[in-house]
Amino acid sequence: MASKPVLYSYFRSSCSWRVRIALALKGIDYEIVPINLIKDGGQQFSEEFQTLNPMKQVPALKIDGITIGQSLAILEYLEETRPIPRLLPQDPQKRAIVRMISDLIASGIQPLQNLSVLKQVGQENQMPWAQKAITSGFNALEKILQSTAGKYCVGDEVSMADVCLAPQVANAERFKVDLSPYPTISHINKALLALEAFQVSHPCRQPDTPAELRT
Amino acid sequence: MASKPVLYSYFRSSCSWRVRIALALKGIDYEIVPINLIKDGGQQFSEEFQTLNPMKQVPALKIDGITIGQSLAILEYLEETRPIPRLLPQDPQKRAIVRMISDLIASGIQPLQNLSVLKQVGQENQMPWAQKAITSGFNALEKILQSTAGKYCVGDEVSMADVCLAPQVANAERFKVDLSPYPTISHINKALLALEAFQVSHPCRQPDTPAELRT
Repeated sequence: MASKPVLYSYFRSSCSWRVRIALALKGIDYEIVPINLIKDGGQQFSEEFQTLNPMKQVPALKIDGITIGQSLAILEYLEETRPIPRLLPQDPQKRAIVRMISDLIASGIQPLQNLSVLKQVGQENQMPWAQKAITSGFNALEKILQSTAGKYCVGDEVSMADVCLAPQVANAERFKVDLSPYPTISHINKALLALEAFQVSHPCRQPDTPAELRT
Repeated sequence: MASKPVLYSYFRSSCSWRVRIALALKGIDYEIVPINLIKDGGQQFSEEFQTLNPMKQVPALKIDGITIGQSLAILEYLEETRPIPRLLPQDPQKRAIVRMISDLIASGIQPLQNLSVLKQVGQENQMPWAQKAITSGFNALEKILQSTAGKYCVGDEVSMADVCLAPQVANAERFKVDLSPYPTISHINKALLALEAFQVSHPCRQPDTPAELRT
């Protein structure tokens, strides 16, 4: 029997949360190995973890005998090997829109406000730097979603774009971004957080969530 | 008859180059509309362009009646609608590795050294900032490629990963990154630059390439 997939994850990492949502949506049973990005100077820098993922980042997923880094590559692999329920629409044009929104978040917003970049800009600049990255991305995203959204990012089916959206909104809240200019984003996020897969995978409910952040 | 795809592109944008390579590899005839990211304070900020791509970034591709932003979303759409020659292997595990390498570059390196971020870090910090982003990503990439590469990034077939690699190496050279610690990256890059699709799409050979940079 094939062994369970193993997810290397940090409770607060928005990219780890993307993968946890997808695993939950698809009903895939898995084990979590927490990698604490802060403790011991960052457990992602250990020799052992670097062998698994030379990028020294979470998430990484051990599955079917390989280890995949990069959350969107993981989502695409899950979609190809465990297609039900689907995270990409059938229509190629809608798939393109879903991927465009996913990439907008995964390449255009998140990398600019992740932990390693914020370390580089210095303590006092972290909040304005992260806020700028997120508002600039959300300004574009809000416009796009106004023409693509139904109940969720693209129509009424949960897709890869939604899997990226909710964790990015959580980051926005952490960095105290004013969400009032983004009614479409906020509305979709609310609908997503009502879904069980988004709840069980939530940063406040992980094995490595500190007691004071649990809800 | 369907109209030709229109690519909004800037000669030096590495993300635009990715799409130009894919269009060339797949033999897709297209028109280029140059968007100068410097001139007039940045033509990507014009009302007209923002309507096309609210992210105010190149590339954007008008094709089959839709406009797609984000280079990897464009590559995936081209792959799904014009599958020959393929940019993703048939085997799902190899596809995952190709996408992981592509995302490592597209989310893990390029966004940290793009024009808008470099503007933010200030003139005197630009070179060291860009060099750090690229060397940190290339350190990981070199390790990964040592176990995946044949003639190209993943085996002996040109893939999406290669489409991302050559433009990133060009950026590394522009930012004077020492490439000697990266023999596998350098070797693959050399093989790629020998291919016609990489040559015709090269930044030094675009309609908007300034005369002094043409070769």
